[in-house]
Amino acid sequence: MLRRVLCTVLFMGALPSLAEVSQGHISVVLLGATGDLAKKYLWQGLFQLYMDQVSSGHSFTFHGAALTALEPGQRLMFDVLKKLACPPDESPNRCAVLKDQFLKLSQYHQLKTAENYTVLNREIETLLRQEGLKEAGRIFYFSVPPFAYTEIARHINSSCRPPPGAWLRVVLEKPFGHDLESAQQLAADLTSFFREEEMYRVDHYLGKQAVAHILPFRDQNRQFLDPIWNRHHVERVEIVLKETVDAKGRTSFYEQYGVIRDVLQNHLTEALMFLTMELPANVSRAEEVLQCKLQAFQSLRGLDKNSAVLGQYQAYASQVQEELQKAQDYISTTPTFAGVLIHSDSLRWEGVPFLLTSGKALDERVGYVRVLFKNRAYCTQSETLRDAEHSQCKAKQIIFYIGHGALNTPAVLVSRNLFRPVMPAGSWREAVGQSDLRIFGQPLSDYYVYSPVKERDAYSVLISNIYHGRKDFFITTENLLASWAFWTPLLDSISHQPLRLYPGGVENQHLLDFEMESGEVAFTLAEAAELLNPNRLMPSDYRTIQSKFRQSPLVSAWSEDLISQLASDIEKTASRTVARSGQFHLALSGGSSPVVLFQRLARHHYAFPWKHTHIWLVDERCVPLTDTESNFFSLHNHLLQSVRVPYFNVHPMPVHLNQRLCVEEDRGTELYAKEIVALVANASFDLVLLGVGTDGHTASLFPQSENGLEGAQTVVLTESPVKPHQRMSLSLPLINKARQVFVLVLGKGKHDITILLSRVGHEPRKWPISGVSPSSGQLVWYMDYEALLG
Amino acid sequence: MLRRVLCTVLFMGALPSLAEVSQGHISVVLLGATGDLAKKYLWQGLFQLYMDQVSSGHSFTFHGAALTALEPGQRLMFDVLKKLACPPDESPNRCAVLKDQFLKLSQYHQLKTAENYTVLNREIETLLRQEGLKEAGRIFYFSVPPFAYTEIARHINSSCRPPPGAWLRVVLEKPFGHDLESAQQLAADLTSFFREEEMYRVDHYLGKQAVAHILPFRDQNRQFLDPIWNRHHVERVEIVLKETVDAKGRTSFYEQYGVIRDVLQNHLTEALMFLTMELPANVSRAEEVLQCKLQAFQSLRGLDKNSAVLGQYQAYASQVQEELQKAQDYISTTPTFAGVLIHSDSLRWEGVPFLLTSGKALDERVGYVRVLFKNRAYCTQSETLRDAEHSQCKAKQIIFYIGHGALNTPAVLVSRNLFRPVMPAGSWREAVGQSDLRIFGQPLSDYYVYSPVKERDAYSVLISNIYHGRKDFFITTENLLASWAFWTPLLDSISHQPLRLYPGGVENQHLLDFEMESGEVAFTLAEAAELLNPNRLMPSDYRTIQSKFRQSPLVSAWSEDLISQLASDIEKTASRTVARSGQFHLALSGGSSPVVLFQRLARHHYAFPWKHTHIWLVDERCVPLTDTESNFFSLHNHLLQSVRVPYFNVHPMPVHLNQRLCVEEDRGTELYAKEIVALVANASFDLVLLGVGTDGHTASLFPQSENGLEGAQTVVLTESPVKPHQRMSLSLPLINKARQVFVLVLGKGKHDITILLSRVGHEPRKWPISGVSPSSGQLVWYMDYEALLG
Repeated sequence: MLRRVLCTVLFMGALPSLAEVSQGHISVVLLGATGDLAKKYLWQGLFQLYMDQVSSGHSFTFHGAALTALEPGQRLMFDVLKKLACPPDESPNRCAVLKDQFLKLSQYHQLKTAENYTVLNREIETLLRQEGLKEAGRIFYFSVPPFAYTEIARHINSSCRPPPGAWLRVVLEKPFGHDLESAQQLAADLTSFFREEEMYRVDHYLGKQAVAHILPFRDQNRQFLDPIWNRHHVERVEIVLKETVDAKGRTSFYEQYGVIRDVLQNHLTEALMFLTMELPANVSRAEEVLQCKLQAFQSLRGLDKNSAVLGQYQAYASQVQEELQKAQDYISTTPTFAGVLIHSDSLRWEGVPFLLTSGKALDERVGYVRVLFKNRAYCTQSETLRDAEHSQCKAKQIIFYIGHGALNTPAVLVSRNLFRPVMPAGSWREAVGQSDLRIFGQPLSDYYVYSPVKERDAYSVLISNIYHGRKDFFITTENLLASWAFWTPLLDSISHQPLRLYPGGVENQHLLDFEMESGEVAFTLAEAAELLNPNRLMPSDYRTIQSKFRQSPLVSAWSEDLISQLASDIEKTASRTVARSGQFHLALSGGSSPVVLFQRLARHHYAFPWKHTHIWLVDERCVPLTDTESNFFSLHNHLLQSVRVPYFNVHPMPVHLNQRLCVEEDRGTELYAKEIVALVANASFDLVLLGVGTDGHTASLFPQSENGLEGAQTVVLTESPVKPHQRMSLSLPLINKARQVFVLVLGKGKHDITILLSRVGHEPRKWPISGVSPSSGQLVWYMDYEALLG
Repeated sequence: MLRRVLCTVLFMGALPSLAEVSQGHISVVLLGATGDLAKKYLWQGLFQLYMDQVSSGHSFTFHGAALTALEPGQRLMFDVLKKLACPPDESPNRCAVLKDQFLKLSQYHQLKTAENYTVLNREIETLLRQEGLKEAGRIFYFSVPPFAYTEIARHINSSCRPPPGAWLRVVLEKPFGHDLESAQQLAADLTSFFREEEMYRVDHYLGKQAVAHILPFRDQNRQFLDPIWNRHHVERVEIVLKETVDAKGRTSFYEQYGVIRDVLQNHLTEALMFLTMELPANVSRAEEVLQCKLQAFQSLRGLDKNSAVLGQYQAYASQVQEELQKAQDYISTTPTFAGVLIHSDSLRWEGVPFLLTSGKALDERVGYVRVLFKNRAYCTQSETLRDAEHSQCKAKQIIFYIGHGALNTPAVLVSRNLFRPVMPAGSWREAVGQSDLRIFGQPLSDYYVYSPVKERDAYSVLISNIYHGRKDFFITTENLLASWAFWTPLLDSISHQPLRLYPGGVENQHLLDFEMESGEVAFTLAEAAELLNPNRLMPSDYRTIQSKFRQSPLVSAWSEDLISQLASDIEKTASRTVARSGQFHLALSGGSSPVVLFQRLARHHYAFPWKHTHIWLVDERCVPLTDTESNFFSLHNHLLQSVRVPYFNVHPMPVHLNQRLCVEEDRGTELYAKEIVALVANASFDLVLLGVGTDGHTASLFPQSENGLEGAQTVVLTESPVKPHQRMSLSLPLINKARQVFVLVLGKGKHDITILLSRVGHEPRKWPISGVSPSSGQLVWYMDYEALLG
């Protein structure tokens, strides 16, 4: 059949003879040729490619493929092809001729068995040989469900590779996994069949003209953006895709993925990267772009459940019940709305909030990337006299308008009081008129507005880029995995998060408005929330319990509440102590429990008197300070690097002296003891934070320890039963000189020792923690419910 | 005469007999009783005091005093008194009676000689004795030019002190000096006559009802403000006093002071303090308020000339020429407009811009304190659907409206989407109506608006507070000196700054709009500026000169430009080096020249790869690191505390070991040398920054030094000819291993050594700097014009 088509084409003489073209032949194979995506976009995109490239010197054949048998498949496919539209900017005559040719160059194949693939390959080879054509390359477009990927990939790899000298490009459609692990698995599978440069993973947002122009815009406007594209000038960035449609009819897909996997992890994240990455010297070099992008991923601050607000439109549950035949009491925890606050810790963006928002059943359909600049001006003239057009006190914004919404076209908008942007004249033109429209709080006339000369569908753009081998328009494996690595912790942590139910459409009112606070987000309206997932008890359902443990005060709560109580108690102690004595000597333990505390102190306690705080270590592992096992390293990572403790006030334990670790002759313990005596009045710390091990150890004082449980030595070397064995620790007598000692005990794993401790007396040789009993200070236990109640 | 007046009063029986009152008698002496301020405000304030306190149990007499002789003085004063107005909230009958009594209780005195004061005192004593009155206290109100203060103070102290048990309150009017030194002098003079608690320094802004309510507002609304009154929530604060009048007729005063001394140093600074200070537990305890205020002053970041924009209205020069009989070419450098950007480095306010603005001949008369909060909300609903009244996406503001302007009344405004404030019902009431007015970008209906139940003139408020002994409404000596200490460096640095000329009134248009950038301010419109002070050449008039010095590249410019060039060259080197090797080893010298560089790096180079930079010291003084003489301390202060260099990457020199300084046996030099070898590849620093002393020393390598000029030792102890003598320093051979060496030479004082160095060869024993010659690296000289050209 291929033969027949080609003969016809040649006979017609409408094309240059395939044999004459010098650039070679390209075979395009569209797998899933009769599916929804193919019908809606892909065939049209391929037709557009053909129209654009018919005179490029390449010859083409288009191979539709599906599981359907030849006859019905052919029929289905050609029904689609006959309906291909001519773009408005193409002359109808030329288009009609080209469409006719396109149909003739197109052919349907059933691709089901290994044999089918071999046959396809043989047909392509035969044609090329017969026509005396040099092969340029083959494009395999996977418009199939992901579970079919591996099988198809294996067949292509084993049977359909082009001969040496010609390229292979396989085009893959999302979803590419549903978390880091599955994405890694899929990537590993694909990598066993294709080389990285052969794979073109589609994120069709990269084909959206406004999104695709972000990097070129940044590049072409470097002169204006260089001074302002940073945290000193940018107030916030919003990356938004709002939909009015809901998931009806698609719940079998949607219920597995939800809005974050469907939209945020891919589309909105890519836009985020284009905004935050450092500009490579050459923005059209895919490798440079990729490296900058990966670096930008590295700078993103990790998300936790408080980074997101989640919602679900009310009708979703019943749609799922109906479409997936679930019981009436089935509760879906799939979010259909998400607002996520992202921070980058790069020097450029530190502190700038990036808000990614998407949802179904909202009040309008619109997509945009909005960069709002800070108002840094003071306008001395009274408001009424300000020149509306150019006053620096008006909002300054750059908006990449993806489409729909009030403008109903892709556009780039730049506030006139910013600068007149450089735009590529051939592809973008300045829009005029429409001045009564208000957009992002300002009349449209306040902006320079540019829209594409030719509005192009995302898939047309992408197919053209596949043809041109522009890999920067596609998601590399590294990029994909970096994105999943970023999103997976959030996805894991919210799997049991409550969802806010919303009615859908304009009825949502302010229900989905949300606010940022200390790096977290929460819905603005608290009271109206109807919460899904009734099984989970909210921390606020419990009150912090205050009672006694081993004759000392006990504070107990769920771990999250406990940590915030502890952090705020530490702050109070610090402030009081600084007010009294001008400084606060805080000794902190290593281990995993305090990490959450450190993070909380770093992010939520801006009023902490860090400038007057001295930080000491309760214990240290005998490893270099920059070793990830080092207690100090963890403390530095989670706390010190985020706050402003003067260098002089930081006192890591001297475990590393003369290029060796904890050697007695180096007298590190003596050094530390002297430092304490020199700086801490009466060697009495203001606050010592301890933990408890399952064996009853505290600090690095282990059961039966030879050192540190008694005696005059204040800082000691000890041996731990677990690696790294060598430790340095404050001694029990020194700890007991403190004005306050807080002991933090977290988690089910500590329940047994907790029970034990509640029964035993003062037996520090057996359970060192039982020897903690400040001689004139106060001891307070902070235990979460899991440790206390099991 | 006093006797006569009192008899009349007693005879009338309208008052309780003076002898019967139990609280005692108060004598008020108004010095400058016939001057402008007395005429306009003070007598009216005293009359108000009398009306308010006539039934308090105190009796009063009022003594007007001036230099004028008795007869004409009496006439002048009673002309004023007769015109005293009755407040609208007072019944006309009662007021008429009280005014009559007030006139009778008032008396004029000529106070010129020591004898006059003795007579006044005797008259007061006689009256009291005759009437059998206990003396409660005496108020002396100085409404006189400041040059007269000391003389009057001496007389009062020696002749007019009340007897033990009664208090003395002296009330002083600004100006209180015109810089720190003169203010200290004046304060010292006054302190020799009065105790601190006896002095009431007036800043009449503290009597403005809206300003006076800032602290009570913060106190009474703690519940709402506690979470948001900080840098996380406040976007900016504007403290503004705009006047339409100019200085005509007052230039003899104004030409000496200018807008900063006239308005910013006192009025606006006080408002700033009320906003930024921590709230004392009890806001009506003057001592607690003062301590918090002084602390707030301590947190203010120092100002320099780039902290302010300055202007002068065009007619000012000719007014000065005319009124002060100056020549036609006389140029005044007195600013009549100033916009100043202030930052507090407190944890609460770090990074929040406080803009203080005031000027004459502006487009409107208005005063306000405006706190604008950040928009932390994302409103999912489209703009057109947002509930205008309560949307969290609308601006959130708290405004203390001092007066005039569109509202034309003192007021407190709070955006309705913030909270409904708690206001004292007796003194403030909610305003209604006027809804078509727009204020600060929003309709008035968006705010809760409160105005005073009784509008009171500032002087009435203050006189009442003097009577009540409310010292928190007055400026203590410490407060005054703290303010001058803050403002004086700016005043000194701008004395030769160019001023922007402005036409005055609405014609100013955008000419006085200004913008913030990296902690500095500049007028927005650059081109239109007509600059005063043509004698001064702008740095931008010169281009950085590049040539050679001692066969190495030389960069030269005015010092400011030179520093910014050097900072940006260092950043470029750092970025390149980190890109190549992952880290950047930077060795920095001590001394004063680098301080400006450190500040520039801290404030302007956000893209500097600090995270990958190691900081080493070129030399150090043998003092503890926390000593202000320590090079490291200065480096920490001016650079390290503002950027994020990981703790592990900071390498101070170990001059302080075993609690002693630079003792050879402690082997600090060896330690540092080992640290360098362990971390710096090939012990070759990426960049070493050096300076040059007038004696040709560099690092801490002095002429004829025994150590460090040659030999294998890389870190050495040396002796400086100046204190502190002992130093630690990198050696010349080690410095010469660096990849790059930059030598910074600043100031006229270095001109001679520069000339010398341009002529001599390699003679490190005579001039150690001449031995700097990197064996395979590059040497660049950075010299300012003063060093180079003298």
